[in-house]
Amino acid sequence: MTQLIDRKTIDFFLFDLFEAGALCDAGLYDHHDRTTLTAALDLAQTLSEEHLWPHAALSDAQEPELVDGEVRILPEAKAALDQLRQAGFFAAHAGTYEGGMQLPVVVNHACNGMMKGTNPATHAYMALTRAAGNLLAVHGTEAQKRQYLGPMLEGRFFGTMCLSEPDAGSSLSDLRTRAEPCGDGTYQITGTKMWISGGDHDAAENIVHLVLARLPDQPAGVKGISLFAVPKLLVGEGSQQTVQNGVSVAGLNHKMGYRGTSNCLLNFSETTPAIGTMVGQPNEGLAAMFHMMNEARISVGIGGAMLASVAYRYALGYAQDRRQGRRLDNRDPMSPQVHLVDHLDVRRMLLRQKALSEGGLALCLYAGTLVDRRRLSTDAEDGARLDRLLDLLTPVVKAWPSEFGLEANRDAIQVLGGYGYTRDFPVERLYRDNRLNMIHEGTNGIQALDLLGRKVLGPGRGNLDLLFAEMEHTLADVRLCGTLTAMCTRLDAFENHIAQAAAVIEANMDTAGKVRALGNATPFLNAFGHFVVAWLLLRSAYAAQQADVDADFADGKRAACQYFFDYELPQAEVWLRTACRDASFLDSVTVASL
Amino acid sequence: MTQLIDRKTIDFFLFDLFEAGALCDAGLYDHHDRTTLTAALDLAQTLSEEHLWPHAALSDAQEPELVDGEVRILPEAKAALDQLRQAGFFAAHAGTYEGGMQLPVVVNHACNGMMKGTNPATHAYMALTRAAGNLLAVHGTEAQKRQYLGPMLEGRFFGTMCLSEPDAGSSLSDLRTRAEPCGDGTYQITGTKMWISGGDHDAAENIVHLVLARLPDQPAGVKGISLFAVPKLLVGEGSQQTVQNGVSVAGLNHKMGYRGTSNCLLNFSETTPAIGTMVGQPNEGLAAMFHMMNEARISVGIGGAMLASVAYRYALGYAQDRRQGRRLDNRDPMSPQVHLVDHLDVRRMLLRQKALSEGGLALCLYAGTLVDRRRLSTDAEDGARLDRLLDLLTPVVKAWPSEFGLEANRDAIQVLGGYGYTRDFPVERLYRDNRLNMIHEGTNGIQALDLLGRKVLGPGRGNLDLLFAEMEHTLADVRLCGTLTAMCTRLDAFENHIAQAAAVIEANMDTAGKVRALGNATPFLNAFGHFVVAWLLLRSAYAAQQADVDADFADGKRAACQYFFDYELPQAEVWLRTACRDASFLDSVTVASL
Repeated sequence: MTQLIDRKTIDFFLFDLFEAGALCDAGLYDHHDRTTLTAALDLAQTLSEEHLWPHAALSDAQEPELVDGEVRILPEAKAALDQLRQAGFFAAHAGTYEGGMQLPVVVNHACNGMMKGTNPATHAYMALTRAAGNLLAVHGTEAQKRQYLGPMLEGRFFGTMCLSEPDAGSSLSDLRTRAEPCGDGTYQITGTKMWISGGDHDAAENIVHLVLARLPDQPAGVKGISLFAVPKLLVGEGSQQTVQNGVSVAGLNHKMGYRGTSNCLLNFSETTPAIGTMVGQPNEGLAAMFHMMNEARISVGIGGAMLASVAYRYALGYAQDRRQGRRLDNRDPMSPQVHLVDHLDVRRMLLRQKALSEGGLALCLYAGTLVDRRRLSTDAEDGARLDRLLDLLTPVVKAWPSEFGLEANRDAIQVLGGYGYTRDFPVERLYRDNRLNMIHEGTNGIQALDLLGRKVLGPGRGNLDLLFAEMEHTLADVRLCGTLTAMCTRLDAFENHIAQAAAVIEANMDTAGKVRALGNATPFLNAFGHFVVAWLLLRSAYAAQQADVDADFADGKRAACQYFFDYELPQAEVWLRTACRDASFLDSVTVASL
Repeated sequence: MTQLIDRKTIDFFLFDLFEAGALCDAGLYDHHDRTTLTAALDLAQTLSEEHLWPHAALSDAQEPELVDGEVRILPEAKAALDQLRQAGFFAAHAGTYEGGMQLPVVVNHACNGMMKGTNPATHAYMALTRAAGNLLAVHGTEAQKRQYLGPMLEGRFFGTMCLSEPDAGSSLSDLRTRAEPCGDGTYQITGTKMWISGGDHDAAENIVHLVLARLPDQPAGVKGISLFAVPKLLVGEGSQQTVQNGVSVAGLNHKMGYRGTSNCLLNFSETTPAIGTMVGQPNEGLAAMFHMMNEARISVGIGGAMLASVAYRYALGYAQDRRQGRRLDNRDPMSPQVHLVDHLDVRRMLLRQKALSEGGLALCLYAGTLVDRRRLSTDAEDGARLDRLLDLLTPVVKAWPSEFGLEANRDAIQVLGGYGYTRDFPVERLYRDNRLNMIHEGTNGIQALDLLGRKVLGPGRGNLDLLFAEMEHTLADVRLCGTLTAMCTRLDAFENHIAQAAAVIEANMDTAGKVRALGNATPFLNAFGHFVVAWLLLRSAYAAQQADVDADFADGKRAACQYFFDYELPQAEVWLRTACRDASFLDSVTVASL
């Protein structure tokens, strides 16, 4: 029986490839060791398999409902959230002094990845709460921490992020929601927020909305946006009494996937005042929010990779089980049918899923270790270097696993054929769920512009060299390994092409202007992502040879790497050439001709 | 307002690019001219826009239900089918002597394309009926034609195709359903068929199932399969009385998309006999069925292309309407937001959708004209040539638009962002619907093996040269057109690579064996499809310059072609190189390592 959660690969990446155990040697994580980290991972896996996965199909079929102005979610989802709460996962990331597990970021991401892969919709309630809590932890007042953060870490209060409005989704500078000072230190919030995941539900005692809004008479654009904490129920300090705040659900969105997460249009009323308190400084709301969004972006990437992984594992089990047809060179209808996995086209699709999902996972966990190394770093120069690496990789970590994880999900359906297209099998649901990851937390197109315009060029100039140095450093031993040498050489060549492409695009900025020079940023991001993933899969193939793992496992890591270099990486060369052309052609196409 | 159905392009392809008007000059279609063909297309468009599209979302939300053993479908779907019936579309393809429109195949495909693009689920009931009817028209007895075909052409009886069984989907040689002679010329059918689209419903007076089954004591494998017509209600000759036959619905499948088409597990009972009559000769059932499947495969391709086209048109309208953000070089938050279409990454996604959907449509309509030219051909050599071209292209026509149309659908969602992910907008539904087209009527993997193993190599050797000659013939004028010359040269280079690849793969058959040599057939099909589509888009760009169309329209055809050559075709070179490698690597990967 193929386990849906590929725990062996997760552990291998964590402990062999990225040496997460060493994070516990000293400092922030020194209360942990491999045993305690493993216990946390075990717990996350059990919760995923026993409490999240079992109701994933049901929660897809029975969406949250708006009843008498309040959203009701599936009882099974509430029960699973209770389990997560009891297991302490609402505070897995938080400091031990707050009652948290204080897990290394990378281990925490791995735990969340298992939960997202098995049931992203239910897990989202907790993920949003933690993201909101992190923001309060950094920018909140002591009162906000007492009133809101404490109960959020306990999993009693949940949180949301209220950014988008009907006319401002990707373009946050156009936000219109207003915050008027009430004179007593609080603010009345007025406006409409949409796409609010977990915007209402009946799974928590209270919901704390973190809302971007404008104070009166502030500059237009992103410079005039502040952040506010607006609870569903107003809580008196030290009091058990609560009063309904002026936040109401104006409607529910019904989505293609992620159906178990309520998604609300929230109205911050003019009549019944919606009262909040400011988080951080005036007009610095967006900066605070973006601080949190980098974490959220790694989290989206993990979701993309793990939804692909779970679907892959399901398809793999199916393909090993189900017999259909015979090999092309066998024309004897009396011979037994072979397993699906014995058809080479099926095996190609399985290897593709393996390479794309493991590549995406490795990418996200690598980013997680960078965050941990940054936290542990005591050297200013090293810290700055890690910051820059993270800056560079964050848009890729968000976009690549969501883009190519979805490809893997598509192949998982194809392996199951007609069965895969039915809701009796989970692969179509995982595909629908994963389709969101290309969109939320900044569309992949926006990530591509961020990567190329800000992280590779412009203020990010020099970041590429830091990455190349990091890669070179990790490949020293790999180069000496006979079977992997050739792939190292191909990666070197690709590195040169990336560097050349960056130079060409920088020159295009002068000749064609920024808009056109960055017009093919998406192919650049995809190519760059392939490059980074190729590096990580190569390291994975090497580490598996060295580690104490069985031969089949090591062969698999080697095969995924070889597949990726042979079948996927050559396409990235084409995308890179596309990215080197400025987009004058696209710009010249008239709208009327479309 | 952007029309969802791009009628202008359809007409341009039909009448300018493929000169469908000339099909009416003499022979089979001489009762038609451009006016009558246009009237049929107008009618199909009106039915699509006014009767099919309006209930597409509802029929997705409210699936067919099994009530007291019978399937009930949406009243709106039944009403739309009534409209199709009254308009005569159940017999659009049939001879005028049967009361049909006797439309050219290519025009009929265009009509069906509009219907499929707007509501494939409701249209499927008619499509299946016509496919079944075509089979009876060729292979049925006079009695079967009287009893079943007549009412099917009138749209009173519907038809189904009963091929798959729980253990035999792609592998039809493993069918187990049995047919026992009753002694009176009829047969009792026993077994279970699954994935039967339209297998039951309440939209017709009767349903005629065409069932593959085995006579007693016949050879194993595909050689022992016969075909039977098994009605839901037994009809006495010349009598109005009907008796329930022993066909029952054992269950409904619930799919990711195409939800309005009932999809049944059918039980052909042992207790209540299911009585049928043989269609065609004993043991020749599969050949008869495959005769029909080539038509069905073009039809799948048209669905893939038109679902992509309708989604593209929706996304285009949205992107022209919706303002979001500013160009990268404008940092003034007080300036108005620009339309989505003015962001180059959005324009890239729109052009991609345009090129992929129009390319797919051109491919399918080209195949349709080949069928018509074949029918009209009076020259044996020319007829054989057309047969071979059709043989070669059919797997591509089925697979390419379903594979790349789905890519276009994915981009349509991305253009709408979060909105596109909700069921309030049609693009996610069109994506879900289109996902089926890669699977049904033979998975794309099977099409790829058919293409490479039987249509390019083996019995198909020489077919490529026929296609190259046809291409050369049509490009003579295009080459002289200054702006298109360079693309012609690139196409020539690609043609050489295709020919070389075929030779390499043929050599691989000897060195590595058939299984491994054909193991990368899917990348070959995708590359070959890109090649054929590039040719057609080039012809389309040229024809638009010559035709009496407005400049914007001609610019658009040129832009789609340029986009395809610049952004998509270079990838195909990579796939072709992959296909040239035998798949020893895939074969060497052990199942235990996956």
